[in-house]
Amino acid sequence: MNNSERYQRGLRTLFALDEIGGQQFLERLESIVPDFVDRVVEFPFGDVLSRSGLDLKTRELITVAALTAMGTAPAQLRWHIRSAVNTGCARAELIEAMIQMAVYAGFPAALNGLYAAKEVFDEMDAGAEQTVKA
Amino acid sequence: MNNSERYQRGLRTLFALDEIGGQQFLERLESIVPDFVDRVVEFPFGDVLSRSGLDLKTRELITVAALTAMGTAPAQLRWHIRSAVNTGCARAELIEAMIQMAVYAGFPAALNGLYAAKEVFDEMDAGAEQTVKA
Amino acid sequence: MNNSERYQRGLRTLFALDEIGGQQFLERLESIVPDFVDRVVEFPFGDVLSRSGLDLKTRELITVAALTAMGTAPAQLRWHIRSAVNTGCARAELIEAMIQMAVYAGFPAALNGLYAAKEVFDEMDAGAEQTVKA
Amino acid sequence: MNNSERYQRGLRTLFALDEIGGQQFLERLESIVPDFVDRVVEFPFGDVLSRSGLDLKTRELITVAALTAMGTAPAQLRWHIRSAVNTGCARAELIEAMIQMAVYAGFPAALNGLYAAKEVFDEMDAGAEQTVKA
Amino acid sequence: MNNSERYQRGLRTLFALDEIGGQQFLERLESIVPDFVDRVVEFPFGDVLSRSGLDLKTRELITVAALTAMGTAPAQLRWHIRSAVNTGCARAELIEAMIQMAVYAGFPAALNGLYAAKEVFDEMDAGAEQTVKA
Amino acid sequence: MNNSERYQRGLRTLFALDEIGGQQFLERLESIVPDFVDRVVEFPFGDVLSRSGLDLKTRELITVAALTAMGTAPAQLRWHIRSAVNTGCARAELIEAMIQMAVYAGFPAALNGLYAAKEVFDEMDAGAEQTVKA
Repeated sequence: MNNSERYQRGLRTLFALDEIGGQQFLERLESIVPDFVDRVVEFPFGDVLSRSGLDLKTRELITVAALTAMGTAPAQLRWHIRSAVNTGCARAELIEAMIQMAVYAGFPAALNGLYAAKEVFDEMDAGAEQTVKA
Repeated sequence: MNNSERYQRGLRTLFALDEIGGQQFLERLESIVPDFVDRVVEFPFGDVLSRSGLDLKTRELITVAALTAMGTAPAQLRWHIRSAVNTGCARAELIEAMIQMAVYAGFPAALNGLYAAKEVFDEMDAGAEQTVKA
Repeated sequence: MNNSERYQRGLRTLFALDEIGGQQFLERLESIVPDFVDRVVEFPFGDVLSRSGLDLKTRELITVAALTAMGTAPAQLRWHIRSAVNTGCARAELIEAMIQMAVYAGFPAALNGLYAAKEVFDEMDAGAEQTVKA
Repeated sequence: MNNSERYQRGLRTLFALDEIGGQQFLERLESIVPDFVDRVVEFPFGDVLSRSGLDLKTRELITVAALTAMGTAPAQLRWHIRSAVNTGCARAELIEAMIQMAVYAGFPAALNGLYAAKEVFDEMDAGAEQTVKA
Repeated sequence: MNNSERYQRGLRTLFALDEIGGQQFLERLESIVPDFVDRVVEFPFGDVLSRSGLDLKTRELITVAALTAMGTAPAQLRWHIRSAVNTGCARAELIEAMIQMAVYAGFPAALNGLYAAKEVFDEMDAGAEQTVKA
Repeated sequence: MNNSERYQRGLRTLFALDEIGGQQFLERLESIVPDFVDRVVEFPFGDVLSRSGLDLKTRELITVAALTAMGTAPAQLRWHIRSAVNTGCARAELIEAMIQMAVYAGFPAALNGLYAAKEVFDEMDAGAEQTVKA
């Protein structure tokens, strides 16, 4: 059991994004890189996303924008669309971010972001858990 | 003179981002693609960035995050760092967005974002205009 | 009903690329971003692809080359392979473009382009409609 | 039959990476670009991967790292993970390379690499052949 | 002296793109990877760009489009803009390709392509040789 | 003064890559993100690059390959070419990695890697310190 402050803070932030999805994420990592799981909790979630200066909702919005623009991580994009909603981002704000990426990363990137958002929103409306592990 | 609503709205949004830099941008485009300049004012600035649903400051923040993550447009990244400040984004918020990109796009992308931010902030402190045309 | 010249021109160009696929594309967008659909018809199709200076066949060829090189939009790549054929591009020309991308974007990008082309051509030979929505 | 030294050397190198997968790869290419198959054997496999200066195991390790970082060729990444193991790369070394890519290309890229490695290793443990053609 | 057909064909194609620039390119490579220079002449220029099926002008146009969209090789983009003109591509066609990339890769990529085209055209008008080695 | 084991281990690894360059890197970061510098020492250098399973020389080689393939971080690529040499990588091995990236990421990426290597090697031969801060 890792009781370090960084780990505990990371865990709280991860679960604030998506508690069930976060638990599944850690279990999946545990089966592949057991000695690196704690580092994943500590650095991205404990050291970075937990920083003050931007609230978690805004942090998720910029992650969604960046992943949409990059276009290389569709599973992670879906995970963060759900996390963005979970942390208070309005669906309409996410749609706006997707549309805006047409300007900076092109229409294919923006369209793929919009389609992903639609699928995640539909899934959430159906009361379903995250189906894409990321 | 283009008096269409879309063009006029685009021009207002462009100049809200950076009036002097926006003017230089249009002049540069005019010398290369004179029959496309109005489309550039209309679509990205008039049709997209002018949409309600996200305020201009948040729009600039997600553009800065996306361009930092992509890493392929350093001049435009600098332009939008300045525009983000011009539209009310705190410098500290931009720094947070850069740091966060280390998680999603890697440290080199984040570092180049941080170095760009430092240079733009120093330039602004010195009272200087945008030196990178974008 | 949008009767603007830009919208009508965009619609004609979109349908010249793929009439059934284009209709499905607009319906899909309508269900996600109803207030942005007209902009998608107007800007990419009405303002850009409808420009003179390059014929539509050549425009589709360079889009196919670019999407193959980028490697981030496989659904849109398939859509444009079909559109390229629809606008007069010989299958052999598309294959040449894919091969050439091995030089500029690497073999994995080129191979994925070639596999996509094979699948689209087989689908067209079977008289089937576009199966990938993009 | 191509008896050139370059072709024969390329074939040996390709089959050293994955004999069954390599054969399937050539058959797939033969059905799409019959007049380019020999060039694919000759250049990447005969001219580049067969060079001295780095052993084949190290070559596969850097290819796996690069494809993980790029994130645009998931099928080819899986193919090369298997080839890396076939040429003597320890599974643990591949996992290390994936983890390291979190630093240089971000966590989503690294996670997708780790998930791909897990799937390929499980497939190999089940005695199965390559299921992803690349 | 390499008298192989592939090498000689590659050299002719390279020099058709840009004779002085091509010579400088080979000299630069000679100083870094002397035992790989012939492979660079043979594969991209002798095996790929020399293929029939697309004329050299069209090949340069799609390379320019792809490099503009990728945004990661500004020096090579400039080299190929000049080569495209040298092989018969109208300046206006190159400008059209750049504009079109705004749709598929975003405005920053397209703008950087347009700026590069302007600089290369100005350089050619001044009677100057390629200043960027690529 | 941060006396944590992770920080101290990170510092040793950073200085093993490049002592003077590493010191400059920390000073530069200190001037921009003083409260994040320790995290940069701890995570990439202390948690990742210090892991056993791959020696530091091999780690630098795969980083150089990945950055060459990505093409988005030229300053960091140069920094790691020098670090690779500092940790025991033969120059010829780095050149081989660059050549190999032509296959997986295209010739422009490989050429830019080769040119960067040449410049770093020349700089080292002249007894000069790192000139590119990264």
